[in-house]
Amino acid sequence: MLYWITLMRPDTLGVIGLGAIGGSVAWQAARAGVSRIVGYSPAPAEGVAAAKAGAITEIATSARMVVRQSDFLVLAAPPAAAMDQLRSAAAEIRSRGIWCTDVSSVKGPIVRLAQSLGLAPHFAGSHPLAGTHRSGFDAARSDLFSGVIVYVTPVEQGDAAAREVEDFWSGVLGAHPVPMAAGAHDSLLAWTSHLPQVAASALAVALAASGPRGVTYGTGARDGTRIAASSVEMWRDVLLMNREPVLKALEGLEDSLGTLRHTLLSGDAAALTNWLANAAEWRRGLGE
Amino acid sequence: MLYWITLMRPDTLGVIGLGAIGGSVAWQAARAGVSRIVGYSPAPAEGVAAAKAGAITEIATSARMVVRQSDFLVLAAPPAAAMDQLRSAAAEIRSRGIWCTDVSSVKGPIVRLAQSLGLAPHFAGSHPLAGTHRSGFDAARSDLFSGVIVYVTPVEQGDAAAREVEDFWSGVLGAHPVPMAAGAHDSLLAWTSHLPQVAASALAVALAASGPRGVTYGTGARDGTRIAASSVEMWRDVLLMNREPVLKALEGLEDSLGTLRHTLLSGDAAALTNWLANAAEWRRGLGE
Repeated sequence: MLYWITLMRPDTLGVIGLGAIGGSVAWQAARAGVSRIVGYSPAPAEGVAAAKAGAITEIATSARMVVRQSDFLVLAAPPAAAMDQLRSAAAEIRSRGIWCTDVSSVKGPIVRLAQSLGLAPHFAGSHPLAGTHRSGFDAARSDLFSGVIVYVTPVEQGDAAAREVEDFWSGVLGAHPVPMAAGAHDSLLAWTSHLPQVAASALAVALAASGPRGVTYGTGARDGTRIAASSVEMWRDVLLMNREPVLKALEGLEDSLGTLRHTLLSGDAAALTNWLANAAEWRRGLGE
Repeated sequence: MLYWITLMRPDTLGVIGLGAIGGSVAWQAARAGVSRIVGYSPAPAEGVAAAKAGAITEIATSARMVVRQSDFLVLAAPPAAAMDQLRSAAAEIRSRGIWCTDVSSVKGPIVRLAQSLGLAPHFAGSHPLAGTHRSGFDAARSDLFSGVIVYVTPVEQGDAAAREVEDFWSGVLGAHPVPMAAGAHDSLLAWTSHLPQVAASALAVALAASGPRGVTYGTGARDGTRIAASSVEMWRDVLLMNREPVLKALEGLEDSLGTLRHTLLSGDAAALTNWLANAAEWRRGLGE
């Protein structure tokens, strides 16, 4: 009997940026059986580490070299750098019909850019919910995406590319792709991810500026500021690119602190109880 | 050969409040060999749970009954309730020469109260850095205090009582007592503990009020709001009792968020990088 097997896997996967996310994409694809994975990092040591771990099969010496050899391309640099790479690679992506996606936490700008570059048949944005406060290939894992939600944001008229990108996440990496419009994604993430980042960093900035030195911080302070240690470059790009929704969410946090301030100044125990109880009820509803 | 052994342990330990902290004090003391432990909780089920676990040897039916039988008394109710209990017990503490301490996260008010009640020879405040967002005896552990820092805040002229309380924490429970003036403690904790609590609760309140419903929250949001689930009654008391230092710390957080808002509005990438880098550097300095 003869079986026809359609392989969803790319022949050659290209990954630009071999940090926690890009390194994990390459590594998990290698484990899944993608036979050729070309990777590039502007930090040569990252490429060497990725090759040693078996996450990539070839180290490229430039981003361009990755583009030239891939039939599926993942841009895994911080958001602004990923947009630059998309601009540089656009002609080759169009002429060679490469599938392409990125992995950043803000999707509107890169999706609009892809649209303006005529990449609707080739590009869809991705955002795997697998962020970590750690950076570099050292933070990469070979099973990071198993069971993880990945938002996939299509370009207008880009449904074929979005399907291809979804198939890559589910078929190769075992993740759960969830299609979503880029604008809806960015409004959502402003609350669920960008505001928590801002809150953690703001608390860390306040403690760094005025908090006591050389003292013991308990679990609450440590948990509450952990993601403040995340990549500065990445978050600079995300916050600037998602400015309007982040400012709106920030206003929500400032209002909440304003309510507390008013409550403390007036010594209103009932209002304070109410404020704390709202917070506790919401958090208990999330589970541990 | 004959050895004289001085036991540092109380003959009868009394614990009022059998939640995460009070329940753990009783339980760990039982494990350490204190033979008689009388406990009271306003929630009868907590007393039963504590007795079943072997954390207490006797369930008292009132706080007063605990006081009457103890030679070392731990007030482990929320701060305002603990102060009421100290008022009610003062005459008995003085006449029977009971050693007494509490466990709350704010120390000025109860230390001043002890002073005014003439309890300097008997009372010192305690604050074990072993808080948890979970409540009730269900959250108690029989080894909670091993190696944990416990701030001990003496009443003026109360050095003998402070030494006795320190000996209890170190000799019986294996903790590390650190003596500190109550005022200094409250200023310190406003930053290291109360501000992180406020930040977590404010983020939870903002997300509860305006955040999206039924969506997936990642590690950052979950870690950053975990302690928002803590006891409402306890935090109401702590924040009201430590109002001035908390308002000052709150101003630090509001300033930090204000800097971010200004930076985002003006699109100043260098200032935003600087703000995020300050946060990251401080948090990386804390370790994981």
